[in-house]
Amino acid sequence: MKETHFFYVPKTTETDELPREEAIHAAKVLRLKPGDDIYLMDGVGNFYHAQMNLATAKHCLYEIKEILPQQPTWKGHIHLAIAPTKDMGRMEWLVEKATEIGFDEISFLNCQFSERHILKTERVERIVISAMKQSRKAWKPKINSMINLTDFIKTNTSRNKFICHCYPEIKRRDLFEQLSPLTDDVLVMIGPEGDFSVAEVEAAMAMGFNSASLGNSRLRTETAGISAIMQANLKLRK
Amino acid sequence: MKETHFFYVPKTTETDELPREEAIHAAKVLRLKPGDDIYLMDGVGNFYHAQMNLATAKHCLYEIKEILPQQPTWKGHIHLAIAPTKDMGRMEWLVEKATEIGFDEISFLNCQFSERHILKTERVERIVISAMKQSRKAWKPKINSMINLTDFIKTNTSRNKFICHCYPEIKRRDLFEQLSPLTDDVLVMIGPEGDFSVAEVEAAMAMGFNSASLGNSRLRTETAGISAIMQANLKLRK
Repeated sequence: MKETHFFYVPKTTETDELPREEAIHAAKVLRLKPGDDIYLMDGVGNFYHAQMNLATAKHCLYEIKEILPQQPTWKGHIHLAIAPTKDMGRMEWLVEKATEIGFDEISFLNCQFSERHILKTERVERIVISAMKQSRKAWKPKINSMINLTDFIKTNTSRNKFICHCYPEIKRRDLFEQLSPLTDDVLVMIGPEGDFSVAEVEAAMAMGFNSASLGNSRLRTETAGISAIMQANLKLRK
Repeated sequence: MKETHFFYVPKTTETDELPREEAIHAAKVLRLKPGDDIYLMDGVGNFYHAQMNLATAKHCLYEIKEILPQQPTWKGHIHLAIAPTKDMGRMEWLVEKATEIGFDEISFLNCQFSERHILKTERVERIVISAMKQSRKAWKPKINSMINLTDFIKTNTSRNKFICHCYPEIKRRDLFEQLSPLTDDVLVMIGPEGDFSVAEVEAAMAMGFNSASLGNSRLRTETAGISAIMQANLKLRK
């Protein structure tokens, strides 16, 4: 695939027009013209080679020339649930890097020691889409709204669930050793800078979460998040 | 070790005074007083529990109470050599995360397709020291000045050397599979956004570098750097 311009169009085949924001970028920033080649990505595994038919300041029409499906490079489903940091820049960095490396879903947790209780997902969506374009990924990770930890652990149905924490008095095993290449559906929970509370760890374990450690290093929340995703991706990659 | 204030003092036992920059931080920002407990780190594996004896605007004297050696949490030596990105923010993020995760040495390479040919290491040093304090590491990674790739591959003496690149036509094996838990001395080279040139890859291979891949994902330079360090740390950790 030659280096060219990518646009995120969730329902690529149901329309022949770029979404408004993408159209403005195409026409005003990139100054694309009728006849120019573009690539569309639908977020569910397909690229489309297309040609611009019309490019005005607000409307860009395209015609699909070719469908280019992308095989997933890892098995199953990698889901990160994390208590967001006070500094949103650190979370934005995390979702950019997680998208480059490869994962499927992110949830933001409201915990007892959380420093951030509100999070708007619009900006996170935009960062994920930008990272998808940059890293040529046709699969869009799902971004969930903030949820209370107590509700999350009750409703989640992942088959392999882990809670990473730093309490040496609660028996925990290394995450990487617990992950198996046979695993096809992984959820890892990472707490806030002040960690989960002991009661939260115990409640999660009672709901089937495995107590886990990310190793000997003292990591910031966002570094723990990227470490969990790298470990899961290393184990589940094809 | 209780949560308290850390200061980087390379020759802790040869003096009884905090370096100027650390002294100003202790006295003016933290407003520490005589009698306060502090922790020093020497960068070569030791913490020191100490007590402030004098704290003026420019001079802070201390008395060491206890030496607390820190065992390394990984074996051998992890060395990353990377072509820095144009945007220094991305490199600063990399050294912060690499320090948290754990590594020993970083070199900055000037390559054929490099977008940055000059790099001042002073700011990188400060970020590393700050990350050491934050992640409670008594070992300071070594930070080398910028070097031409051709000189670097000729003079480096690592026993296990890898060059990561994206040329499918040059046979390469997965880095994580090539790394062995028995390895004790690893060097991984990461190229600029435009990759190493084919000639550079061939020259490195002629000097004993193993041709390597970081997996199926298309990663930015700094993400490739952190991925290499995480993979090496996962294999070499104790």
